[in-house]
Amino acid sequence: MVVSQRVLSGMQPSGRLHLGNLLGALENWKKLQEHNECFFFVADWHALSTNYEDTRQLKTFVREILIDWLAAGINPDRATVFIQSHVPEHAILNLLLSMITPVSWLERNPTYKEKQEQIEGRDLHTYGFLGYPVLQAADILLYKADAVPVGKDQLPHLELTREIARRFNSLYSPVLVEPKEMLTQFPKVMGTDGRKMSKSYGNTINLSDSEPEVRQKLKTMVTDPARVRRKDPGNPEVCAVFDFHKIYSGSDVIKQIDKECRTAEIGCIDCKSLVANTMVEQLAPIWESRKSLEANPKRLEDIVQSGGEHATKVSQQTLSEVKEAMKI
Amino acid sequence: MVVSQRVLSGMQPSGRLHLGNLLGALENWKKLQEHNECFFFVADWHALSTNYEDTRQLKTFVREILIDWLAAGINPDRATVFIQSHVPEHAILNLLLSMITPVSWLERNPTYKEKQEQIEGRDLHTYGFLGYPVLQAADILLYKADAVPVGKDQLPHLELTREIARRFNSLYSPVLVEPKEMLTQFPKVMGTDGRKMSKSYGNTINLSDSEPEVRQKLKTMVTDPARVRRKDPGNPEVCAVFDFHKIYSGSDVIKQIDKECRTAEIGCIDCKSLVANTMVEQLAPIWESRKSLEANPKRLEDIVQSGGEHATKVSQQTLSEVKEAMKI
Ligand code: SF4
Ligand code: SF4
Repeated sequence: MVVSQRVLSGMQPSGRLHLGNLLGALENWKKLQEHNECFFFVADWHALSTNYEDTRQLKTFVREILIDWLAAGINPDRATVFIQSHVPEHAILNLLLSMITPVSWLERNPTYKEKQEQIEGRDLHTYGFLGYPVLQAADILLYKADAVPVGKDQLPHLELTREIARRFNSLYSPVLVEPKEMLTQFPKVMGTDGRKMSKSYGNTINLSDSEPEVRQKLKTMVTDPARVRRKDPGNPEVCAVFDFHKIYSGSDVIKQIDKECRTAEIGCIDCKSLVANTMVEQLAPIWESRKSLEANPKRLEDIVQSGGEHATKVSQQTLSEVKEAMKI
Repeated sequence: MVVSQRVLSGMQPSGRLHLGNLLGALENWKKLQEHNECFFFVADWHALSTNYEDTRQLKTFVREILIDWLAAGINPDRATVFIQSHVPEHAILNLLLSMITPVSWLERNPTYKEKQEQIEGRDLHTYGFLGYPVLQAADILLYKADAVPVGKDQLPHLELTREIARRFNSLYSPVLVEPKEMLTQFPKVMGTDGRKMSKSYGNTINLSDSEPEVRQKLKTMVTDPARVRRKDPGNPEVCAVFDFHKIYSGSDVIKQIDKECRTAEIGCIDCKSLVANTMVEQLAPIWESRKSLEANPKRLEDIVQSGGEHATKVSQQTLSEVKEAMKI
C-alpha cells in the first residue's frame, strides 16, 4: 500500500530541460503526484546564488521550466506548482533559521567548496552562496514535508535540513518536521557526445527541441568510437545510442540491435534513425502540449498564481507556528 | 538652512532604555524628526542574531522600547515608527543582497570578531550573526535613506552598506541610494558605578524606573572615591554625580557644586539630592507619558500598525525597483 505523504521538490530555472531531467526528476515527480500531496517549485531565488551576475534570462528560464514541467505531465490539479519568489515566507524563514545555523555547518558542506571549484570565472564566495543550504532548509521546512526526493549527492544537504530542524525544535518547541529522504535512482542519461547529458557539456536533447533538431542531434551523435567503417562490427555496450534504445525501444528491437550491431548487419545511420522514430513518437505529445501552453500564457499564469496562493497559505501557517515557538 | 532628508535609524529591543540611550540616540532622533522624513524601527530580527537562544522576553522588550521612544518624545505624526518584522520586505531584500555580498566583506567586519569575544557563553558563530551587516544594509537601502545617524564605532557597518549598494548599482542598475553618515557625538553618560552607563554593567537609570528607584540609585551612586569622609574635600572632575549635574542642573548650581565640593562645604548626600530633584523633574513628563501609553495598548498598536503600513508602502516600491533591476 502506498501511504500518502507530503513531498516537496524544486528545480533551479537554469535553462531548458533536457531528456536527462525528464527521465530523471520529472518521471519521478509524475509518479509521486499520483499518491502524494506534492509541492513542486521553481527555485528562482536559488538561481541567484550561482548566477547573480547575469540575470537577463531568468524570467524566460522560469517560464520555460514551467512549460516543460506541465508539458511533461506535471498535473497542477494534483500537485501545487509555484514559484519560490512568489512566497515571501521562504525569505522570512530563511532569515529566522540563519540565526540558529552555525557557520561551521555550512562551511563543511561538501558541495560548497566543490561548486566553487567547478564553476570557474564566477565569484561564488558570496554570503548567499554559503547560505544556500539554509534557504533550502527553509523551502522544505516551511511545508512540513515528510519526504524529499533526492539523489545520493544531495544527501548531505538534506541532512543539514534535518539538523537545522532538530536544532530549532530543541531550542524552541517541536514545530518543524524532519523530512525523510526518498532516495531516487536517477537513470544516467547519456548526451550526444557520449558523456553524461548535461547542459554544461552542451550535449543535451531538450524537451523544447523541434523534431528536426532531435533528428539532427541523433544523426551527429557519437557511437562506438571503435566502429569507424560501416563494415566494422560495433559494441552496443559502449554506445550512447544504444542507451537510448534501452530507454525508448521495445525489447525485441533492443535485442535485434544488440545482435546486428555486433555483426555489422545494421549501420549506425539506420540504428539512429530507428531510435529517432521512437523518441519522436514519445516526445510528440510533449511538443503538442508545449505548443498549447506557449499559445496560452494566461493558463500558465493562472496555474502559478493558484499554486502560489496555496503554497502561501500552507507556509503562513507554518511560519506563524515558528514565530510563536520563537516568541516573536 | 536645514535641508530635509530621509533619515533611518533603528534600535534592538534588548531591554529597557536608560538615560544613556535617552541623552544619546533619542534626543538626537527628536531633533532629527523636526526637519527630516524619519523612519525609526525596532530591529527585532536583529535581536535574534545575538539572542536567539532566549527569546522569552523579546515581545515585552519590543513593547517597552516603543513606550520608551514615544514617552521620550518621538512623535509618530512626524516620524514613521515601525517594527522590522512587520515588513517582510526586509527579509526579502536581505536575501537578495546576500547573493551579491562577498563573505570576505563580512569576515573583515571589525565588530564581528569583537562581539564574539565580548559576549561570552553564547555561541555567536551563526550564519545570521555573520550576516548582520547584510540585514542592516537591507534595512537602510529599502528606504533609500539619505542619511543614517551613527556613532564612530558604527562607521564600518555603514561603509559596508554603501559598498553593497555600489555593488548592486554597478551589477544591475543604479536603484539604491548610498546613505551618508550623520556623525553624532553621543555624550558619554556615566552609570551609578562611575563606569559608562550600560545595561551589561547593571549600572543604569532607566526611563521606566520609578521616582523612588531613581532617588535610591542616586543615593547609592559612587562619587569621588578619594572623598571618604564628609569633611574630606572632593574632586568633581572624577565624580559621576557631577556629570549628572552638568547634564541636568543650571549653570549656577554647577558652579556652586564645583566650588563647594572642593572645599567640603557640601556633602555628597546633599549634592546627590540636588541632582535627584532636577532629574526627577525632567523625567516626570516621561513617566506621565509612559503611564498613559501603558494604560492604552490600543494606541501603541495603532501607531506601529500605521507606521508599518507606511514603511511597507515605501519598501515595496524600492523592492519592486530592485526586482526590476535584477530582472526577477
Ligand atoms: S549500430 Fe547502433 S548501437 Fe551499434 S554502434 Fe552504431 S549506433 Fe551504436
Ligand atoms: S559633592 Fe557631589 S560632586 Fe563632590 S564628590 Fe560628592 S557627589 Fe561628587
